[in-house]
Amino acid sequence: MLLNMPDINYTIVQESHLRQFVTEVFLSKGFSEEHAQLSADVLLLADLRGIDSHGVARLSGYLRLIDAGRINPTPKFSVDRRKKTIANLNADGSIGLVSAPYAMDLAIEMSLEFGSGWVGIQHSNHFGIAAYHAMKALERKMIGFSMTNASPLVTTARGSERMLGTNPICVAIPAGKEPAFVLDMATSAAANGKLEIAERTGKPIPDGWILAKDGTMDLQPDGLKRGGMLLPLGSDSEHGIHKGFGLGAWVDIFSGVLTGANYGPWVPPFVSFLQPLPNLPGEGLGHFVGCWEVDGFRDYEDFCKNMDQWIQRFKSTIPLDPNQSVIIPGTPEREEHSKRLESGIPLVEAVMNDLEQLSKNTGVAFDL
Amino acid sequence: MLLNMPDINYTIVQESHLRQFVTEVFLSKGFSEEHAQLSADVLLLADLRGIDSHGVARLSGYLRLIDAGRINPTPKFSVDRRKKTIANLNADGSIGLVSAPYAMDLAIEMSLEFGSGWVGIQHSNHFGIAAYHAMKALERKMIGFSMTNASPLVTTARGSERMLGTNPICVAIPAGKEPAFVLDMATSAAANGKLEIAERTGKPIPDGWILAKDGTMDLQPDGLKRGGMLLPLGSDSEHGIHKGFGLGAWVDIFSGVLTGANYGPWVPPFVSFLQPLPNLPGEGLGHFVGCWEVDGFRDYEDFCKNMDQWIQRFKSTIPLDPNQSVIIPGTPEREEHSKRLESGIPLVEAVMNDLEQLSKNTGVAFDL
Repeated sequence: MLLNMPDINYTIVQESHLRQFVTEVFLSKGFSEEHAQLSADVLLLADLRGIDSHGVARLSGYLRLIDAGRINPTPKFSVDRRKKTIANLNADGSIGLVSAPYAMDLAIEMSLEFGSGWVGIQHSNHFGIAAYHAMKALERKMIGFSMTNASPLVTTARGSERMLGTNPICVAIPAGKEPAFVLDMATSAAANGKLEIAERTGKPIPDGWILAKDGTMDLQPDGLKRGGMLLPLGSDSEHGIHKGFGLGAWVDIFSGVLTGANYGPWVPPFVSFLQPLPNLPGEGLGHFVGCWEVDGFRDYEDFCKNMDQWIQRFKSTIPLDPNQSVIIPGTPEREEHSKRLESGIPLVEAVMNDLEQLSKNTGVAFDL
Repeated sequence: MLLNMPDINYTIVQESHLRQFVTEVFLSKGFSEEHAQLSADVLLLADLRGIDSHGVARLSGYLRLIDAGRINPTPKFSVDRRKKTIANLNADGSIGLVSAPYAMDLAIEMSLEFGSGWVGIQHSNHFGIAAYHAMKALERKMIGFSMTNASPLVTTARGSERMLGTNPICVAIPAGKEPAFVLDMATSAAANGKLEIAERTGKPIPDGWILAKDGTMDLQPDGLKRGGMLLPLGSDSEHGIHKGFGLGAWVDIFSGVLTGANYGPWVPPFVSFLQPLPNLPGEGLGHFVGCWEVDGFRDYEDFCKNMDQWIQRFKSTIPLDPNQSVIIPGTPEREEHSKRLESGIPLVEAVMNDLEQLSKNTGVAFDL
């Protein structure tokens, strides 16, 4: 979800400075050089693409989980099971920022040999933006796929209980001259990032985003803090909430049940002040990644030509509002990426304060 | 989409009689014995599962396309390309009721050897319910996957033009003692079946289903006949229409672009009175099917135990309305299946008239 920040105080930080800071913070917590760089790379890509809710804004939360012993800074990965195009990875309590790219590399390796590859990941933690992992496939002329379950915040169709995470699905499809098609979507009607913007601007939210504990629609952006729950995509029975629920459930089953991780209400919380439930059915939380080699289906160049035609035709759809043309998934994020790489990443005050505090706690200098 | 038929005149027909009639009708059009039986099997499964919009109600439409030379009753399938776990099938103008199960068998064969298998299908036609194809994987202890593009009826986010079909996604996941999880969903806010029910009962429809040509919400169920278009899941910008559009686009790219079939507005119409557009970029319409072997990720029995726990826990979610418990995707259809297998399939008057007319035209007896 792309943040457009209306009337918010922010500081522009250069990407290279931020990257160095984040890397050193992870190093200070015992991460290896490779894992620290990789973790920083995943967070920075989120900030560059404008997915501010999943970038360095998350850093302090990760550190609290490391300090609480709930993220292992020095994991040893093991492939518990493997059958040609399928593997299951035990991430040994790793941060997902490291385990998911590792798994994706394995899936790509399988695809080079067999045409496709699929890796389940158990005993992991938050993996940042799903797009980072799926997009790794693009440079190999493959289609990438990634999903993850997450702390329960979303209710089911007909339900009134937090049962699912915002459980994103990402599909990254290469194109020719046009930018890749990158769908990276939470399966809830609105993701946390949108609530954060509404909270900052003090605006009420649309109905269909948050269900209050008493079963009514909550129109205040802090509704989750008062015990409410996010609604699945579709929002209500007339508009297909069972579909949003079905998609979130699919992600949960693939990420949790298929991998041997936790699922549903048992997925461990992302925040250190909440404890995991007793009697967990699995290990940590789970992800599912994989890829298909385009060339297995048809000639890659022909595919890219048709993808370009697809994108051009859809961009030129007759618009509802002549001033708002149709957006191809992934395009705004890519444009933001180019812009921020050049002119820097805007960090809101709360995140700046967070990073300055982290700097004090870890002794890592935060030079702008 | 499950039809609950309020106050509608219908006739109960036994499954075996209907199956024999449908098979003979296809035979009368030149289908081989095998293809006729398979086509009948796909249609009957829809009728048994209560997906009445995709069962024998479609038969006369298929026959018109055969008569118009747009469905080939005697196709010769060829695998144009194959790389271990990936293949592309040229369906030679076949009805999808035959080409998709054929492709799924190939995907299962690949999975037995490699753990997963993926088949794109080009030059095909309507494939009935997506669940038929994905569910073929269940008996092999695999997870099945199917999608198809379809005649353009759905607009994009921000758009005002028919660009996508209702483009369903289906995932079928086995369980242990509990019934399988079968998600089979159109990526539009409402599928045609729901409009048909509303039309029969003469009731207005909710906003967020149909966008009229002039950009306003159409609240009449015949809005499509007046040039309107279906809205993607999410319905509007505040409720995630870009996600529904993204999902429909994903299905279109996998079914059309990846396979070499047509895509977007070029997908050939399902009705014989509309002609395909000129300068088509591909062949026919396309499907994408495949499967993953569960045992590649973890022990199948352990997986099934956790699936049962997943299903039981989600069924017992605190309900919003104490009289409406949470529904697991696929369960109502399975219950309907058992019921209709025993007590027969209810056919509404319009479908009965259709079948009687078909009986006259083809000379196949329609005995109840």
